[in-house]
Amino acid sequence: MSFLSHIRIVLVETSHPGNIGAVARAMKNMGLSNLHLVSPRQFPHEDAYARASGAEDVLNQAVVHGELGNAIAECGLIIGTSARSRHLPFEPLEPRECAALATTRAIQGDQVALLFGAERTGLTNDALRHCAQLVTIPTSDTYSSLNIAMAVQILAYELLLATRQSDAHQADEPQRDEPLASHQDMERFYEHLQQVLAQTPFRNHSGHGQLMARVRRIFNRTLLDEHELRILRGILNAVQHKSSS
Amino acid sequence: MSFLSHIRIVLVETSHPGNIGAVARAMKNMGLSNLHLVSPRQFPHEDAYARASGAEDVLNQAVVHGELGNAIAECGLIIGTSARSRHLPFEPLEPRECAALATTRAIQGDQVALLFGAERTGLTNDALRHCAQLVTIPTSDTYSSLNIAMAVQILAYELLLATRQSDAHQADEPQRDEPLASHQDMERFYEHLQQVLAQTPFRNHSGHGQLMARVRRIFNRTLLDEHELRILRGILNAVQHKSSS
Repeated sequence: MSFLSHIRIVLVETSHPGNIGAVARAMKNMGLSNLHLVSPRQFPHEDAYARASGAEDVLNQAVVHGELGNAIAECGLIIGTSARSRHLPFEPLEPRECAALATTRAIQGDQVALLFGAERTGLTNDALRHCAQLVTIPTSDTYSSLNIAMAVQILAYELLLATRQSDAHQADEPQRDEPLASHQDMERFYEHLQQVLAQTPFRNHSGHGQLMARVRRIFNRTLLDEHELRILRGILNAVQHKSSS
Repeated sequence: MSFLSHIRIVLVETSHPGNIGAVARAMKNMGLSNLHLVSPRQFPHEDAYARASGAEDVLNQAVVHGELGNAIAECGLIIGTSARSRHLPFEPLEPRECAALATTRAIQGDQVALLFGAERTGLTNDALRHCAQLVTIPTSDTYSSLNIAMAVQILAYELLLATRQSDAHQADEPQRDEPLASHQDMERFYEHLQQVLAQTPFRNHSGHGQLMARVRRIFNRTLLDEHELRILRGILNAVQHKSSS
């Protein structure tokens, strides 16, 4: 089950260190160990260790980042967690679908990130912009506010279940040759795309930001592999060359 | 989804009031509200309310009992939670199987209890003796000790998923006429059975207690309905009458 090490939990701007400890325990219970913290309010902290209760090793190995981009740079699949909302940019996965997707990619060698936002506010629109998929844990309509460690526990549980299924079927699994394009490769692609668009009437289009968000959404969801990305970059190069000539 | 009100969470001898609060929140998040506490070490307690965070109503309505028997008296299906162990009296269910069974019975009007033991020790053998089924949450082999509120969260999540499936299929569901025999009816049956056995060579059998435990196991697992139990009681009456004549 070593491919679970390809799946990382990324906590963004977590307020309460006790929650970070509870997350570490929830992860270790389900065989996850790869914890990344983006700008935690307080860490390390005694409350985190108190709640980790046997998962201190996960806390000790946790990587702290100043920016989300660094925590997901080498990841090929980025999934954001969100409460149910009418304002989501696209339809979220169920936890079970999320786990199936994440383990399939992890088995194929891709780095996978599951993002959790701050306790009160969740993931920002800027963080959501990086996500290929969203996942929403079903809850009661009357009280949908899950504790962050509880949310990690449920998704980690589904990952463990998916892992066991994968273990059973892995022998039959078709092997994919190309790894997924990483987050940083995708960011370079989007920069390149914006450069190209800046040279076109597109930049004058009203609602440029909204449109770019949709463009990102399309390519994020597609889960491009490296070869496919090289092709798209080649197209952009070709377009650039043409319009500047 | 009102049949979720037929499913109760029973916490037996919980040590930390904070865990009781976290359980209340986990329940409410998934649409459960029926909390029973058997000899909690400290309750009510400010730590419980601090962790309940929006689920104070579940705590306020919680019923405190001095003995487990009172918390499950009217329940037709009693399921115990347990960590994986070689010493379990019988094979546990997966959480998903547990949820399917519990919701099916709840829809049919039976009261269902999910039992959780003390944090360090789990359910006692005496408590396990009352259970028709056990459920074990899958974990990593290297760290299987789940926090009690996390365990409640995962099972409550599976109950909510099972509920949604039931909602979809409920129209086609075959209706059962007889309710399940309640815990107290089953206890009377076992008393009756022991009375009868006391009049037979069975009482001299070495390992009487072990044998009775297995007998209980058989009937608990069977989930007798009230009509079936009346038949068995009739048989016992008949046997008693014969041997005393």
